[in-house]
Amino acid sequence: MAALRAFESAQRAGAKIPEIVAYEKQDDWGGQWNYDWRSGTDKYGEPVHSSMYRNLWSNGPKEALEFAEYTFDEHFGRPISSYPPREVLWDYIDGRVRKSKVKDKVQFSTAVRWVDYDRDQDIFTVTVENLRSGKTTSSEFDRIIVATGHFSFPNVPEFEGIDSFPGTVQHAHDFRGAEKLADQRVLLIGASYSAEDIGVQAFKMGARSVTMSYRTGPMGYDWPDGIEELPLVDRFEGQTVHFTDGETREFDSVILCTGYLHKYPFLPGELALYSPNNIYPASLYRGVVWQKNPKVYYLGAQDQWFTFNMFDAQAWYVRDLILGRAALPSAEQRAAHMRQWRDRFQELDGDADDVRFQAEYIRDLIDATDYPMFDLDEVVRIFLAWKQEKKENIITYRDKSHPSVITGTMATTHHTTWLQELDDSLERYLSTPERSEVEAIVVGTEPDAEKDEAATQE
Amino acid sequence: MAALRAFESAQRAGAKIPEIVAYEKQDDWGGQWNYDWRSGTDKYGEPVHSSMYRNLWSNGPKEALEFAEYTFDEHFGRPISSYPPREVLWDYIDGRVRKSKVKDKVQFSTAVRWVDYDRDQDIFTVTVENLRSGKTTSSEFDRIIVATGHFSFPNVPEFEGIDSFPGTVQHAHDFRGAEKLADQRVLLIGASYSAEDIGVQAFKMGARSVTMSYRTGPMGYDWPDGIEELPLVDRFEGQTVHFTDGETREFDSVILCTGYLHKYPFLPGELALYSPNNIYPASLYRGVVWQKNPKVYYLGAQDQWFTFNMFDAQAWYVRDLILGRAALPSAEQRAAHMRQWRDRFQELDGDADDVRFQAEYIRDLIDATDYPMFDLDEVVRIFLAWKQEKKENIITYRDKSHPSVITGTMATTHHTTWLQELDDSLERYLSTPERSEVEAIVVGTEPDAEKDEAATQE
Repeated sequence: MAALRAFESAQRAGAKIPEIVAYEKQDDWGGQWNYDWRSGTDKYGEPVHSSMYRNLWSNGPKEALEFAEYTFDEHFGRPISSYPPREVLWDYIDGRVRKSKVKDKVQFSTAVRWVDYDRDQDIFTVTVENLRSGKTTSSEFDRIIVATGHFSFPNVPEFEGIDSFPGTVQHAHDFRGAEKLADQRVLLIGASYSAEDIGVQAFKMGARSVTMSYRTGPMGYDWPDGIEELPLVDRFEGQTVHFTDGETREFDSVILCTGYLHKYPFLPGELALYSPNNIYPASLYRGVVWQKNPKVYYLGAQDQWFTFNMFDAQAWYVRDLILGRAALPSAEQRAAHMRQWRDRFQELDGDADDVRFQAEYIRDLIDATDYPMFDLDEVVRIFLAWKQEKKENIITYRDKSHPSVITGTMATTHHTTWLQELDDSLERYLSTPERSEVEAIVVGTEPDAEKDEAATQE
Repeated sequence: MAALRAFESAQRAGAKIPEIVAYEKQDDWGGQWNYDWRSGTDKYGEPVHSSMYRNLWSNGPKEALEFAEYTFDEHFGRPISSYPPREVLWDYIDGRVRKSKVKDKVQFSTAVRWVDYDRDQDIFTVTVENLRSGKTTSSEFDRIIVATGHFSFPNVPEFEGIDSFPGTVQHAHDFRGAEKLADQRVLLIGASYSAEDIGVQAFKMGARSVTMSYRTGPMGYDWPDGIEELPLVDRFEGQTVHFTDGETREFDSVILCTGYLHKYPFLPGELALYSPNNIYPASLYRGVVWQKNPKVYYLGAQDQWFTFNMFDAQAWYVRDLILGRAALPSAEQRAAHMRQWRDRFQELDGDADDVRFQAEYIRDLIDATDYPMFDLDEVVRIFLAWKQEKKENIITYRDKSHPSVITGTMATTHHTTWLQELDDSLERYLSTPERSEVEAIVVGTEPDAEKDEAATQE
């Protein structure tokens, strides 16, 4: 969507743009924000793209991801809160492009099967399948933009004995809602965003206990009673899990929050990015140009503090390369540039450094394009405030408000707190419930925050 | 495995065989019988192939699937029961080939990405990815055998409101074990083997209720208390499901037993079989030769009463076509042959007819090859006895015994009944437990067969 918008933006300003075809295997756009109730494979038998779950709310302030050229104010016509639920965010990203003609450029329900690069002719042949008809066709292209993201193919490590764990085992990618975890003893393996958010969702929905297992170190939040962190799982024995510190617990459900793989099954090995999930993957000049073939671009291949606005900055820069507005340095110059940034990347020490690095990375891209510059330092400040608020209270940080760095508008305090709100719909979000109605919801559904029933210990 | 064995068999008899490469995306062979505890995507991020669950036992008598040239007697050295659990069957099919050199012909952990057919050169280019290294390579072949089966890509239809059902929703493909269904109210959508077997597994493991929903008609077994059949789901409303007859029930878990798709994402549309699941799919001469390109063969593309021995008959015939031992009729002759069989197929009326048709289909194949003919009429008789035994008691039919049509050996009565046996391992299966031990298991774990707690009705 960012790439389509980037070209549209140039076209509106009078530029001649090349023929563009976007292939999308889902029936609609929105990527991760396009919720599918199915897990595993979708209605066409393709691996489900989205890792979205029903109850997901943004886990970072919307002010850190706001498009510089399409604000929340412009979309909603009034201030909203800082942490909207998924439907609200989908509406925002859809709203930017729904009225334009760029949707005509997208072939939906179409899976890319294979991309072949002919070195002699310097051309890509892209073979796709129309998932509705089963028909396969091939077309030639001069450039390829890989915009699939890299949070779709789960990383699912092995644990001794997990093959006979009698409860539910799934990866966070296949998690669709936390209601079913009510009264369950839940094990989350992982210590990053998936574990953190599914953990508090499970708490919100009344899980009997939530245990999170870390490999490197605990997240260390001031968890409410009922949530705990333990080191890595050593082995499963039936329902019992042994941890490396000798502790044991019994569980009903296990959710593997073990991250995702960079996986591009439609690309030949020499064009496919292979990297751990980090903010400066190797072999991508300016984070977007595939060094071994600079007619291949990746958007959003980084680990992400910044998201939508970073994708925009990348898309605008790639567009300018393709339009010839930006000059592509030589392979040696690109390598030197990447070495310089990799060196900086390897010096980073902690999250605050990471956020600042990513801000500088975006600044460098925007400086090279006509994407509206925005106050990146202020976004860094918002990220640091967000981190602090999470540290102070992991259950209430979503009730805080932040100012837009584009419009200056201060976010509203939402009508219902995250913990108390059980209706995640757009309609509910934009409604103005009576005070009595909000209170009724609170009384009727409040999780028992006082309970101190720890996980069963042996 | 059948195709490899077919060529090996000819080679042992002195024939010169062509170069063969088998690509297998799993780390080992055995297809559906190669259990993976993961669901959705496998350790490489590929769609999980197998639909196997831990507690699966053969749901048809082993005497109906026995290889004509490698008997259960030869493999196990003694009689065993008629309905072995999955590990036992995997051991049997592995045993036939494990000591031969055919395993060297298999490139494991290798996914086929794309098959391209060059009409001018009459050659196939097969592009594969080594999933361990990420390396992609292409090789040329004269013939292609598609032996992936067609029970791997789930068919997952939409139901109104299912996107916000708060409990667990999964397809039978992703079902890995029934223990987690204990105390749950379980809805199975479907009325074929998946629903039937997962239903009785859920009953065995202590589900609070099992409801099966049919589209066309009920299975109609004499279900024990706690299992019922209802017509199709009309819609979900929260935890409540409305059926088309006006009944409503609340459920904790939903398992979609809605079948599978013929899906071959590595094949261009003109080579990919597209068919409903039936015993005589169109466009396959003798059920194996792709009519539009007779250098492409499918094994096991039919719905299956017969399995292992049918795959053998198909593999032997395809081998003979490739070796030039069997002549391929002209396209017109093939079309006429298919019309004739399609006409017979369309006359079939019920399961008994289907079984006899498939027996005749296999007889026709074996007549054309040197695969050992076996008493197909006797297998038909066993299938009909099996159907009768299921009709009499869907819970105990697996405790019955049948004779081998190859060796005449009568199957043993197993040391523990299916309902009482909670250890599905090969080791346990082949053990000779003390009588007291079997009784202890019975006493300790017997499901409450007397309970008549029907599904919650509103």
